[in-house]
Amino acid sequence: MPSAISVVTLLTDFGNRDYFTASMKGVILGINPQARIVDLSHEVAPQQVEEGAYLLGSSYRYFPDGTVHVAVVDPGVGSTRRPLLVTTSRYFFLAPDNGLLSYILHEELSVEVRLIENKQYRLDSEGATFDGRDLFAPAAAWLTRGQTPGSYGRLIHDYVRLPIVEPSWEGAALVGRIAYVDHFGNLISNVTSFHLKELRGKTKRDQVTIRLAGLTIDGLVSCYADGRKDTPHALLNSNGRLEVFIREGRAAEWLKIGRGERIEMI
Amino acid sequence: MPSAISVVTLLTDFGNRDYFTASMKGVILGINPQARIVDLSHEVAPQQVEEGAYLLGSSYRYFPDGTVHVAVVDPGVGSTRRPLLVTTSRYFFLAPDNGLLSYILHEELSVEVRLIENKQYRLDSEGATFDGRDLFAPAAAWLTRGQTPGSYGRLIHDYVRLPIVEPSWEGAALVGRIAYVDHFGNLISNVTSFHLKELRGKTKRDQVTIRLAGLTIDGLVSCYADGRKDTPHALLNSNGRLEVFIREGRAAEWLKIGRGERIEMI
Amino acid sequence: MPSAISVVTLLTDFGNRDYFTASMKGVILGINPQARIVDLSHEVAPQQVEEGAYLLGSSYRYFPDGTVHVAVVDPGVGSTRRPLLVTTSRYFFLAPDNGLLSYILHEELSVEVRLIENKQYRLDSEGATFDGRDLFAPAAAWLTRGQTPGSYGRLIHDYVRLPIVEPSWEGAALVGRIAYVDHFGNLISNVTSFHLKELRGKTKRDQVTIRLAGLTIDGLVSCYADGRKDTPHALLNSNGRLEVFIREGRAAEWLKIGRGERIEMI
Repeated sequence: MPSAISVVTLLTDFGNRDYFTASMKGVILGINPQARIVDLSHEVAPQQVEEGAYLLGSSYRYFPDGTVHVAVVDPGVGSTRRPLLVTTSRYFFLAPDNGLLSYILHEELSVEVRLIENKQYRLDSEGATFDGRDLFAPAAAWLTRGQTPGSYGRLIHDYVRLPIVEPSWEGAALVGRIAYVDHFGNLISNVTSFHLKELRGKTKRDQVTIRLAGLTIDGLVSCYADGRKDTPHALLNSNGRLEVFIREGRAAEWLKIGRGERIEMI
Repeated sequence: MPSAISVVTLLTDFGNRDYFTASMKGVILGINPQARIVDLSHEVAPQQVEEGAYLLGSSYRYFPDGTVHVAVVDPGVGSTRRPLLVTTSRYFFLAPDNGLLSYILHEELSVEVRLIENKQYRLDSEGATFDGRDLFAPAAAWLTRGQTPGSYGRLIHDYVRLPIVEPSWEGAALVGRIAYVDHFGNLISNVTSFHLKELRGKTKRDQVTIRLAGLTIDGLVSCYADGRKDTPHALLNSNGRLEVFIREGRAAEWLKIGRGERIEMI
Repeated sequence: MPSAISVVTLLTDFGNRDYFTASMKGVILGINPQARIVDLSHEVAPQQVEEGAYLLGSSYRYFPDGTVHVAVVDPGVGSTRRPLLVTTSRYFFLAPDNGLLSYILHEELSVEVRLIENKQYRLDSEGATFDGRDLFAPAAAWLTRGQTPGSYGRLIHDYVRLPIVEPSWEGAALVGRIAYVDHFGNLISNVTSFHLKELRGKTKRDQVTIRLAGLTIDGLVSCYADGRKDTPHALLNSNGRLEVFIREGRAAEWLKIGRGERIEMI
C-alpha cells in the first residue's frame, strides 16, 4: 500500500487556456489544502487516449510512493464508460475505463482495479460533461486524505486495455514502431534496451543497423551531441528506448514520418 | 470574511513563455513561502479583458474559502486606471479596474470594492509596465499573511463593470449568444439551465429546438458520447450552460462561428 | 550562504506537452516532498541557450533567498560538457556549462562555480539524454535538503560565458540591440535606465530620440496606455530596460524586426 505523501498529478487533454484544469485544482485544494499538485501534461491531443497513455506510462514511476495520478482524456464522459481507481504497489491511478492506464496495467505486476462508485466522493453538479472536476478530482483528493481504495467501489477484472504493440521478429530483423514524437521532433520507438540486447545476442555483433523511412542508420551514438547536424542518428534514450534524432534539428519533419512508422533493426 | 488558507490563483494574458508569471510567483513566495499558487490561465488573448473575465467567472467558485484570486489583463497598466481589491463572502479578488471582475460583481450578492492604495504593499521598482509583479502579487501575498482588506485603501462604488449579456425573449423564442469557444472548439452559450427551465415552462414541452448559424438542432443530449459524429448537438454542460458541440470534432470550425454568435431556442 | 527555504524553479526548452518536466518534478518531490516547485518557463526555443539565459536573468532576483534555480537548455547533454552548481549571495543555480548562466555570472558580484561531480546526487538510469531528470533535478533537491555546495564537486574558473552585448557609443549616438521579443510582440532592448541617464548627461536634454528599423521615435512615454494605437512608442519598462511597443498591437510584426536588431538613441 502506498504511504501518505499527498502528491497528485494531472494528465488531461484540456489544454492550458481554459478554466478546466484550474477547476480541478480548486476542488482538490478544497478537500486537501496540503496536496501537492503537479501538472503531468494538459496538451494531450484532444481525445487521443493512446497518446495520454504513453505520456503517463513514461513518467509515473519517477514520482514518490503514494502519488495519486489522475488522468482524464475522456471522450466517453457522462456515458456508460466507467471511472476506475487502480492501486499498484507504489501508486494510485484514477482514470476513465478507456485504455488510458494501459501501460500501467501492462507493466505493473500487482494491480487492483476498482470502480469509483461511492457517491460521497463525487461533487454535486448539474451536467455530465466534466467528470475531471466533479468525480476524478474529489475522488483523488479524498485518497490523499486517507480514504481506503476499498471504500470507492467493487473490484473488477473486465477493464479496457489498449494493445501495446511490442517489436517482433521478421526473419533476422527486429521490427518495431515509432511510439511517440516529442517536442524536439525526436522519434521515440517501442524498441527498448532489452530488445537491443536480444538482437545483439542473435547477431553476435555489437553494431546494429537501423532502417526507417527508406533510410539506413549505422550504429548508435551515445548522446545528441555525438550526432552530425543534418544527418539522422539513433541512440538509446534515458527512458530505455531507441530514438531517432537529428542534432539540433527535427527528425520527424526531416524524415516526414510520425507515430506508427515502421522501424527495422538488424 | 474568508478564512486563512493561503491559495493564490493567477489569471493573466502573459503567456507561458516569458518571465512575467514566474516573477509574480517569486514575489509571492518571498512574502509568504507557504502560499499555494495555482495557475488559472495565462493564455487569455492579449488585452482581452472580456475573455479573462469569463474564465475567472467560470472557475473561481471551485476554490476553497479564503482563496486570493489575482487577475491581470491590463492594457491600462501604469495609467490612471485603478487597482482593486474586492472581498466577497468567500474570496478575495485583485485586479485592475477595467471590468475583469464583471462576473464576480454580477454574481456575488455581497461585495466590498476597495482601491489598493497602501504603498507598503507595493514593490519598489522603476518603470510602470508590470503591476502584476510590483503591485498585485505583493498585495495578494500580504493578504495571505493576514493583512486586512481595510488596510489596503478606500471603499469605492464607481468601479467598472462590463455589460454581461443575458438571453432575452423575442416573441416565443429565447435568444442568447455564444459566450466562449473552448479548447475543444465547443461553443458555450450564455443560456443556462435556469433559462431552459423558463423556456420549457412557457412552451409546455420538454423538447427544445435550437437554431444557430442557419442550422437547427432538435433537443438536447446528455453527454458528448451521445452525439453522432459529424453532426452538431447540444447539451447542458457542467457549468450549467447550453453548449453546442460535435462529437470528437470542433463545432466552432465546423459551423464557422465564434463568440458573439446568436443562438435561438424555441 | 542562502537560507533554507526550499523553492526550486525550472527553466527548460522541453515544452509543456511531453513527460520531461513532470519527470523532473517527480524526482524532486521524491527527495524533498516539501519543495515548492515553480515553472520559470519551459517554452525556451529548442536549444536556444541565449534565450534561456535572458529569461533566467530577467526573473531570478524576484525569488526568495535560498531559491534553487535549475536551468536545462542543453544541446550537449551526455557529451563532455560539464554540469555546474553556482552559488551566489542569495541563490543556487544548476545548469550545464554552456553559457546558460551568463547573466548571473555577469551581474552577481560574488559567485562560486563548481562542477557537479558527486555521483550520490545522480539518479541511476540507462541512457545519457536526460540530465534534467537524472542529474540536475536530484542535485537540486538534495540542496534543498541541506547538502552543502562543497559536497558537489570542485571549484572551477574556466566556465563558459556568453558575451553579453552592452550598448556602445558611436559618436554622439548610443547604439544598442533588441535583446528579446516578448509574448506581446514588444521589443526589449539591452539599453537600461543607467545608459539613458548617461545619454541625457551627455546631451544635456531630457528628451531622447530613438531610431530603429528606419523609423524615428521622439521621446519616451511612461506606460503602454500613453501610446497612440498603430504608432510605435518607447518606454522604460519595469525591468529597467528601454522597450519599443505598439499599444495593443505587436511591434515586432509591425516593424518586421526581432532579436539582434540595432537601436540608436541620441
